[in-house]
Amino acid sequence: MNAPRQPALIGLDWGTSSLRAYLLGPQGELIDRRAEGWGIQHLPAGGYAAAFRGVAGEWLDRWPGLPVLAAGMVGSRNGWREVSYIECPADPASIAKGLVTLDSGCGTIHLVPGLMQGGPLPDVMRGEEMQIVGALAMQPTLAERSLLVLPGTHCKWAVVERGRVVRFTTYLTGELFAMLRDHSIIGRPAKEMGATATGPDFDHEAFTRGVRSAQESGAVGIAPLLFTARSLFLTGVLTAPQTLDYLSGLLVGEEIRSVVAGLADAARPATVHCPAIVLLGDPTLCNRYRLALSQFGIDDVQALNETGPLGLWRIGEAAGLVADAPDTI
Amino acid sequence: MNAPRQPALIGLDWGTSSLRAYLLGPQGELIDRRAEGWGIQHLPAGGYAAAFRGVAGEWLDRWPGLPVLAAGMVGSRNGWREVSYIECPADPASIAKGLVTLDSGCGTIHLVPGLMQGGPLPDVMRGEEMQIVGALAMQPTLAERSLLVLPGTHCKWAVVERGRVVRFTTYLTGELFAMLRDHSIIGRPAKEMGATATGPDFDHEAFTRGVRSAQESGAVGIAPLLFTARSLFLTGVLTAPQTLDYLSGLLVGEEIRSVVAGLADAARPATVHCPAIVLLGDPTLCNRYRLALSQFGIDDVQALNETGPLGLWRIGEAAGLVADAPDTI
Repeated sequence: MNAPRQPALIGLDWGTSSLRAYLLGPQGELIDRRAEGWGIQHLPAGGYAAAFRGVAGEWLDRWPGLPVLAAGMVGSRNGWREVSYIECPADPASIAKGLVTLDSGCGTIHLVPGLMQGGPLPDVMRGEEMQIVGALAMQPTLAERSLLVLPGTHCKWAVVERGRVVRFTTYLTGELFAMLRDHSIIGRPAKEMGATATGPDFDHEAFTRGVRSAQESGAVGIAPLLFTARSLFLTGVLTAPQTLDYLSGLLVGEEIRSVVAGLADAARPATVHCPAIVLLGDPTLCNRYRLALSQFGIDDVQALNETGPLGLWRIGEAAGLVADAPDTI
Repeated sequence: MNAPRQPALIGLDWGTSSLRAYLLGPQGELIDRRAEGWGIQHLPAGGYAAAFRGVAGEWLDRWPGLPVLAAGMVGSRNGWREVSYIECPADPASIAKGLVTLDSGCGTIHLVPGLMQGGPLPDVMRGEEMQIVGALAMQPTLAERSLLVLPGTHCKWAVVERGRVVRFTTYLTGELFAMLRDHSIIGRPAKEMGATATGPDFDHEAFTRGVRSAQESGAVGIAPLLFTARSLFLTGVLTAPQTLDYLSGLLVGEEIRSVVAGLADAARPATVHCPAIVLLGDPTLCNRYRLALSQFGIDDVQALNETGPLGLWRIGEAAGLVADAPDTI
């Protein structure tokens, strides 16, 4: 067994439903990791301080004084301490300037701010910005101009230009799917069978049918199509489990249809100026998006996973909490 | 007190959550009415037969042999007996031909079929067709060409031409609103305050803001706007109760935006050929739709309420269950 490497930073991804901790080396490499279900709405007895000690206490006992960064909902209004959003355009330097320190009871924690886009239709994110910063650190060619897509409950599409997040948009796609599956008439047939439409095994054809219907709806969108997830079941075209994959296709398809409509050249609607798209996050979900994008003629879409730890390290670096790695032999 | 008039028909509107009974005179006029919470998912002990006796037994004791018509989910796969849908184009004669009789234990019930629209994106309705048939009987001028809108959990838009329902579309608007209010992050602030956004008192400005945002989204639609119902709260622009009216405006606005996009002349997208629109149903909900339609420049929209009983009578007439009214003095 190798001697343990000297860590340089502890990074926390502290969201609503989970707490992930990363022990990072002097070049941002992952040395160790922990995960607990202690999201800010599921704290253990003893609250935030106990959760922090539980997940990072051993590391701090062994390497006292390690700097600690925490991103995500822990810095929200309902979190440990509220951290003001940083306005877009944002980059690691502006994010690092917004860090807020907190005495955890066993050392200082630097809370990372989320991002805000102002204007008449504002938008916010907390936590996803670490995945974005990490992706740009992992693949510096993306920094010049790219469109980063982070599928999930609240899917984010972030436009990056010259190393800065210039704007972003949140889509409720994941939450809409879960709600329609669990609480609407559409999900009822599958629920009665115990089908869930999660995991890598899914009905490719039903999903693609949904994506295609959304695409072909043009400017009309899927408002008049959602109910077909029920009527195609009632008419025997889709089985109960297929209705969920079809619904997933409709919703992901609508998200992409909407983005493509927004990218279209107003003067020549058929001309879409689409920068390089990169998917970030869970590979299974990213695969669905890749399939759907391909239906829209957007191919060669790259996917990156686990970029968040490197994003935390990059912010630590920008804040001067970690030294630039010396060129050691 | 006047002597009770001689009734000609008992009509039932038997849905998922309620059972409404109407005692109708020889010209379809309402003589008496009952309502119980015995929808097909909330039957009393004794099931369908007990519910039927409970709601109509006294009328049948007093006027034995009165014909009985029942429309709605009672004729669905999960109802008392399944009644096959009638294909569009449909009119009272084709609906009457599809009646299915059932021995209730205290007399025959004629179950009214719902409507189906075929094709690659099928659609179905059960119960709403009685409101449509009733509206055409109440205002025969609508029969030539009109667009009937039935707001609700599953809002229906039905195109009527020459007395027939030629096609229709279901929008999940009401169900989406309830789900987002009750089960999503968007509804959380209002829920914590106990606000519900039901009833006639609502924030006109917040609702209109939502409608306008949907309208101005053009071909993009509201996919990237739904989350603003949260971000406008987080940024202090909307109060917690206002988020619900704004959300309602977004969803109703998206429905209308979608319909208008579908009506647009493909060759000249600015030219919309819109037939006379009539709203059917709950006046409070119809008023929201009227306000939203007005934002889209569609004014002078008429609203009719309680057209279902006359629809049942009209089907009874078409089926020969009630005689044409004699010209009595």
